[in-house]
Amino acid sequence: MTDSAHPPRQPGRRLFLTRAAVAATAATVSSVGLASPLPKHSPVDEQTEPFWGKHQGGITTSMQRHSYFMSFDLITTNREELIALLRSWTEAAAAMTHGPAQMDTHPDPDKIPEDSGDTLGLSAARLTITFGFGPGLFEKDGKDRYGLAKHRPAALADLPRFTGDQLIAERTGGDLSVQACADDPQVAEHTIRRLVGLANGIAKIRWAQTGFAGSFKAGETPRNQMGFKDGTMNPSTKDAAAMKQFVWVGDEGPTWMRDGTYMVIRPIRIALEHWDRMKLGFQEQTFGRHKYSGAPIGTQHEFDPLDLDANDKDGNPLIPENSHARLSAPASNDGAQILRRAYAYDNGVTHIAERWPPWHQVTTFDAGLLFQCYQRDPRTGFTKIFEKMAKFDMLNQFTTHVGSALFACPPGAKPGEYIGQRLFA
Amino acid sequence: MTDSAHPPRQPGRRLFLTRAAVAATAATVSSVGLASPLPKHSPVDEQTEPFWGKHQGGITTSMQRHSYFMSFDLITTNREELIALLRSWTEAAAAMTHGPAQMDTHPDPDKIPEDSGDTLGLSAARLTITFGFGPGLFEKDGKDRYGLAKHRPAALADLPRFTGDQLIAERTGGDLSVQACADDPQVAEHTIRRLVGLANGIAKIRWAQTGFAGSFKAGETPRNQMGFKDGTMNPSTKDAAAMKQFVWVGDEGPTWMRDGTYMVIRPIRIALEHWDRMKLGFQEQTFGRHKYSGAPIGTQHEFDPLDLDANDKDGNPLIPENSHARLSAPASNDGAQILRRAYAYDNGVTHIAERWPPWHQVTTFDAGLLFQCYQRDPRTGFTKIFEKMAKFDMLNQFTTHVGSALFACPPGAKPGEYIGQRLFA
Repeated sequence: MTDSAHPPRQPGRRLFLTRAAVAATAATVSSVGLASPLPKHSPVDEQTEPFWGKHQGGITTSMQRHSYFMSFDLITTNREELIALLRSWTEAAAAMTHGPAQMDTHPDPDKIPEDSGDTLGLSAARLTITFGFGPGLFEKDGKDRYGLAKHRPAALADLPRFTGDQLIAERTGGDLSVQACADDPQVAEHTIRRLVGLANGIAKIRWAQTGFAGSFKAGETPRNQMGFKDGTMNPSTKDAAAMKQFVWVGDEGPTWMRDGTYMVIRPIRIALEHWDRMKLGFQEQTFGRHKYSGAPIGTQHEFDPLDLDANDKDGNPLIPENSHARLSAPASNDGAQILRRAYAYDNGVTHIAERWPPWHQVTTFDAGLLFQCYQRDPRTGFTKIFEKMAKFDMLNQFTTHVGSALFACPPGAKPGEYIGQRLFA
Repeated sequence: MTDSAHPPRQPGRRLFLTRAAVAATAATVSSVGLASPLPKHSPVDEQTEPFWGKHQGGITTSMQRHSYFMSFDLITTNREELIALLRSWTEAAAAMTHGPAQMDTHPDPDKIPEDSGDTLGLSAARLTITFGFGPGLFEKDGKDRYGLAKHRPAALADLPRFTGDQLIAERTGGDLSVQACADDPQVAEHTIRRLVGLANGIAKIRWAQTGFAGSFKAGETPRNQMGFKDGTMNPSTKDAAAMKQFVWVGDEGPTWMRDGTYMVIRPIRIALEHWDRMKLGFQEQTFGRHKYSGAPIGTQHEFDPLDLDANDKDGNPLIPENSHARLSAPASNDGAQILRRAYAYDNGVTHIAERWPPWHQVTTFDAGLLFQCYQRDPRTGFTKIFEKMAKFDMLNQFTTHVGSALFACPPGAKPGEYIGQRLFA
């Protein structure tokens, strides 16, 4: 092998210099009083979502088109290695959200590139990266590996086993989670690869799931794979009071979790091929809404109020007792609300046993909803709402919860901090 | 259940009336001499790719962002049922490429919706749908199920077993194939679901693979997951002479395949996590090109000629003997060329045995390249080029061909025809 084609190297020059690194250097320099012009290519444009802040990104951020979720098992038993991982993840995440690595014009062939380079030429694509801490961070198999057991929040209690759960170990749980959301699938994949590389020897992959969202117009409620508008009742992320009440952890939580939130994530397989064979009226009764308008049954417009007391001429409720809309409504759950941020998933096909007669094995879609929701406390959020739905929702005929995990998503970080730092302070 | 909320029905009114159906009706009417104005909402805009034509769409079409490939096994033994399937697939495909189904304002709750409705509100997203015929259409297990064995083209010979192939049955072969490509993943998924529904009882799912492409700028060669520019040497789809010479079947083929082409499709898992740990110089020697510029080693610019005779000062070839660029170059293959149209794939993670010591089971990415190429004859196209590469390409250290299939893609159809009609005439 030869490198004679390469121009002379400049020793010590970094192979990659990210825009964020440039910006961070500039910021550091200016903070000690030295004048330093900002780089000419400003890293912040409409393709850039902020990384640093009071809250982590990717929670109240307007949904991107693509998502890559990954759950990890920690293999280190060393607290300092865990902290080092969180620090390097935070630094890499902050850099990547500012845009793809910049290429050096004098690369060193004897070095391993810091970045795989597959997003060179792409934009930041509104990348956000959201980290979560699973129960295993605090205690696993009875062991307090990192001296954190005493800091485990009461809200991070294991979820109960819900009626109908058919959880697969390979799609369940995890000590740490990372989710990259971006408008470009290659950007999301690149991000997860980079973070997996940094975890080498400290944490290993447990499970992963990619997701997507259709390109519905801004301000329009998107349709899910069942053809219904999905998210009509979701609290608005622009409603700060609702976010404070339902999403962000307040004084009731441990200090390290204030301004953080809890995430429930569940891959839900949907028997789309069966759903597609159902009559329109049955589909609408199942949801409790009209398919095309999204209006509650008996009304005309999507945002017409959901009147749970309305009856038809025979005295039967217009919104059926076991319909999805009724069971999930705040009014049916003592006012409980969660912030849903769910993507569709499609892994191609899988070989499964049919739920309908004649029972047989069939190759069919491994597709459905990567359900995700954020809440201040899962016990009064997802669990409160879903316990009844798991038993009674007519939609359950077509859905199977095949995985489940719960993570505490710590608050955001300030430049120089790492995600979760207050937990270790 | 009640449907009292629905306005009075108009009997016989179709639940869905697609833009294409409107257009087709207009065309039929005008062809018998009656004046009929075209619908006001023209179905053709920049989001629409033509369906009808000399060639099928999705072959020389500028690549969309997303792809959904599905392979089917035929279960019917009835030739007429097979023809009926091809006819209904063609009609549905023509309609869907013109845009999502239009919703009826007076839907009938007692009917099964013709369309799942999940793309209502989206655009056509440049949807193309490409159909292929596998060897099993002509003969399977020694049986000529549809009286087509005599029409099997010599070019549709089974691919040889290549060195290193680790083909999995669940990702290999098929009697029929469908690929939906679109700029929106929900549009691609919707298309495949609709076609699967139409095949119910006639053909069953064999395997499937979704794919994506990063949002690289138009006119820029995209980078693959290994960080290298990919497609520099691809013949231009705008070069009609090259397409005629290398892609479209001519007089040498059976009449029913003229203006058609042959597609090889192979999911290739890439050990991205290992690749990312290789030094830049090694990566470049493996490809035979510089990583950042895409230039052949020893040159400056991506489109500089690939000089296979150039040596360094020690007399060693600049483009290594076993590099990917050298082995795949037309000059190394008696001028053979194929039209590559490959997407990246990422199924999340899988549990596999490592290829590197220490050998162990590991959970890692099920990601890589959904290799796809089109050619006039696979024997002088893919097989010619890949037989040597399968043995010697340095890239093989990081790639595993886990699936493979070959399909004859018949020419395009005219309105009123169905795809492949000339095969059955």
